[in-house]
Amino acid sequence: MAETIYDLIILGGGPAGYNAAERAAHAGMKTLLFEERALGGVCLNEGCIPTKTLLYSAKILDYAHHGEAYGVTVTGASLDHAKVVDRKDKVVKTLVSGVGAKMRGAGVTVVTSTAKITGKSASGFAVEADGKTYEAKKLLVCTGSEAVVPPIPGLRESYAGGLAVTNREILDLRTAPGRIVVVGGGVIGLEMASYFCSIGSEVTVVEMLDKIAGPTEAEISKILQKNYEKRGVKFILGAKVTAVNGKPGDGVVSYEKDGKGASVACDLVLVSTGRRARTRDIGLEEVGVQLNRGAVVTDERCRTSVPGIWAAGDVNGRIMLAHTAYREGEVAVSDMLGRADRVDYRAIPSVIYTNPEVGSVGETVESAKKAGIDAEEATLSLRYSGRYVAENEGGDGIVKVVYGKEHREILGVHMIGSYASEIIYGAAAMVAKKQRVSDVEKLVFPHPTVCEVIREAMFSIE
Amino acid sequence: MAETIYDLIILGGGPAGYNAAERAAHAGMKTLLFEERALGGVCLNEGCIPTKTLLYSAKILDYAHHGEAYGVTVTGASLDHAKVVDRKDKVVKTLVSGVGAKMRGAGVTVVTSTAKITGKSASGFAVEADGKTYEAKKLLVCTGSEAVVPPIPGLRESYAGGLAVTNREILDLRTAPGRIVVVGGGVIGLEMASYFCSIGSEVTVVEMLDKIAGPTEAEISKILQKNYEKRGVKFILGAKVTAVNGKPGDGVVSYEKDGKGASVACDLVLVSTGRRARTRDIGLEEVGVQLNRGAVVTDERCRTSVPGIWAAGDVNGRIMLAHTAYREGEVAVSDMLGRADRVDYRAIPSVIYTNPEVGSVGETVESAKKAGIDAEEATLSLRYSGRYVAENEGGDGIVKVVYGKEHREILGVHMIGSYASEIIYGAAAMVAKKQRVSDVEKLVFPHPTVCEVIREAMFSIE
Repeated sequence: MAETIYDLIILGGGPAGYNAAERAAHAGMKTLLFEERALGGVCLNEGCIPTKTLLYSAKILDYAHHGEAYGVTVTGASLDHAKVVDRKDKVVKTLVSGVGAKMRGAGVTVVTSTAKITGKSASGFAVEADGKTYEAKKLLVCTGSEAVVPPIPGLRESYAGGLAVTNREILDLRTAPGRIVVVGGGVIGLEMASYFCSIGSEVTVVEMLDKIAGPTEAEISKILQKNYEKRGVKFILGAKVTAVNGKPGDGVVSYEKDGKGASVACDLVLVSTGRRARTRDIGLEEVGVQLNRGAVVTDERCRTSVPGIWAAGDVNGRIMLAHTAYREGEVAVSDMLGRADRVDYRAIPSVIYTNPEVGSVGETVESAKKAGIDAEEATLSLRYSGRYVAENEGGDGIVKVVYGKEHREILGVHMIGSYASEIIYGAAAMVAKKQRVSDVEKLVFPHPTVCEVIREAMFSIE
Repeated sequence: MAETIYDLIILGGGPAGYNAAERAAHAGMKTLLFEERALGGVCLNEGCIPTKTLLYSAKILDYAHHGEAYGVTVTGASLDHAKVVDRKDKVVKTLVSGVGAKMRGAGVTVVTSTAKITGKSASGFAVEADGKTYEAKKLLVCTGSEAVVPPIPGLRESYAGGLAVTNREILDLRTAPGRIVVVGGGVIGLEMASYFCSIGSEVTVVEMLDKIAGPTEAEISKILQKNYEKRGVKFILGAKVTAVNGKPGDGVVSYEKDGKGASVACDLVLVSTGRRARTRDIGLEEVGVQLNRGAVVTDERCRTSVPGIWAAGDVNGRIMLAHTAYREGEVAVSDMLGRADRVDYRAIPSVIYTNPEVGSVGETVESAKKAGIDAEEATLSLRYSGRYVAENEGGDGIVKVVYGKEHREILGVHMIGSYASEIIYGAAAMVAKKQRVSDVEKLVFPHPTVCEVIREAMFSIE
């Protein structure tokens, strides 16, 4: 029998889990959080934060290389990859301990261990960890996701031998590869491609689709690709990888494109072909939680099929982004507390943090059409912005506002260019609040900024 | 007699004037715009845009100098001030010609000349320029502002002799001063202080008040000062300048502080003690437009005391910022067209573009108190943001949310740190839309970003 009965047990201490834990504890729930590795989850330990640390160092190097166009001369600039990785470790450590402090501050009990739901109990649910049984009235499943290593001949062996890596291992490499092949041109692949390109590696991205950056708006995806190509990244699109062979420093990625076979030699292969929900071995079957293609089925309030069990974050397979997880964790707790709340999946921004940056939220004209919405778009060059012109020699960024044809409500905003990462949240608010073009026209945006192009694009709508 | 009768004559082609001209012409009004110098006004030619161009080059140099902390070694970084000024000229030229193209595209007639209202006419008003008379049904006064050169002994002579300069002349200097004294620690003074400090000048700021950055929130003003001091800028606060003497390269600024006299030797003096509306010699008296302390009195729809005459921009002396002018120009045109519109002076953001950046909108607790509003604030360190930690070694930025005690409506947001310039527009929308803390809590901000600290600060409000 368990000694303490918790109000809430959370499985997984990533953004969904740690945020939910804090909110629940603040609301007076006795909360226990299990995390098997490190607080912060993939985002903090092997995702968002480490990559942003690397990309920022690369940005400083890029600035030094391109200073001439802005009147700044640099005689020698170099990046020490090992030092950057050391710094990344320091940043991650700082932030992980920050999450720990937050948990202590809120009164959350944290147990570093894997945990498994063993079934229902008199008080709610039983969870086993390290041979001990814990009980709680409610459960929140936030076990996240893991990189998929697809069944490509030779890939599993290459992964075991160190030629192939996922987002996890690549962040701990202390020597940069001379030649890297990135399999999968989605956000993770592109951010790492951008980093290694900046620091001097020869980078080739092999992507199965005929465009990069996954669901990114088509024109923006093309501009992004053009910018990468200008920097030296090679893209092989519409190509299926057929084999990965060799060892670190001497590998070959074979692929098929337009019915023909070809190959690229490389020192390292980054596999970034997607992620899948982590739902195995945590006892979801024991309590009958419904899955769909391996992900926990949830509604907009993050409820699972089993009353008393909620799920939040990548484990639901919906939108695998840290901030979605973060919000889902909150909504799950709100729902537990009987507070009206729901995740507005229409208005979740997404960002690519490379140079240039991409920020997107809501519908594209294409996705709106598929959803049966009559939408149009207004596109404006960022060169409309004085600040953009001042800060970007030869910049080709754009912003695109997608709106409903009948009511002029803002359905989506998509942009590529400097500061897009920090600008897009305001556009997400427009989409969430169902604002119309005429509402935004009445707002005052500071000048000179890049963000003001969003507003200006509204004025091009008749 | 005039040959053509215009629907609208605009005096002044700065942000208020050119934007109003475009909107009016698009709405079908036959529009004539007078500009005596260059389209774009102070903002584009000797204000916002030139300074941002300089500051961006300084930022690149700063990055190079601080790369070591991020694993990037840079040797031999130097900035060529003359090249930066050349580039500034190029950027300004590009943007000025962009405004010109916009005017042509919209069908606005632009006349490069000073113009003077000569009185009422049968069709409305008569304006004289270059010996010709023009007539229009409506007038819009956008004559802007000019730097005040205060009556300090020796200053007028120093200005004539080239030791002292205003924001206009300093942007065209082709040699950076070794030692510069900035008289007036407001936004203009600080941005130039920051630039010259970055490029190696010895900078002293003499300010009459006991804080820098004018109306900037007190705690943020202090953090800003601390950051500048760390970079080497000297501040002499609560000091009254009593004399400016000498010649370029050999000057002395004398001041009185705490009843004692002292002085600073310098090569150049920047006078940035404020700006005043330009209302002289444009015939406002002829038609009886009411002034207050030299500025045109306007209401929230930009109407003056004379029906048929509107005024927008710095000339009204309200909030001398380009984006206020821009919006006022629009509102004036809306009002001419009988469209309901007004300037929401509560929600005008302001930005200081130095390193670190400052972005502010709405009330501070102090200003709210003065306005009789019961307000509280929530303050959060930007180090709560993983991105901020990744990108700012030793950063001390904060965000401050000011809200109404009773209804938790957002009254103001103030922040200091990276990207504040591009983040603050979203906060301005919150203030404009009178959103409550609970509204913002339901939005999804992208992670990892600096902007998400605004949302997080909301959660610290009980």
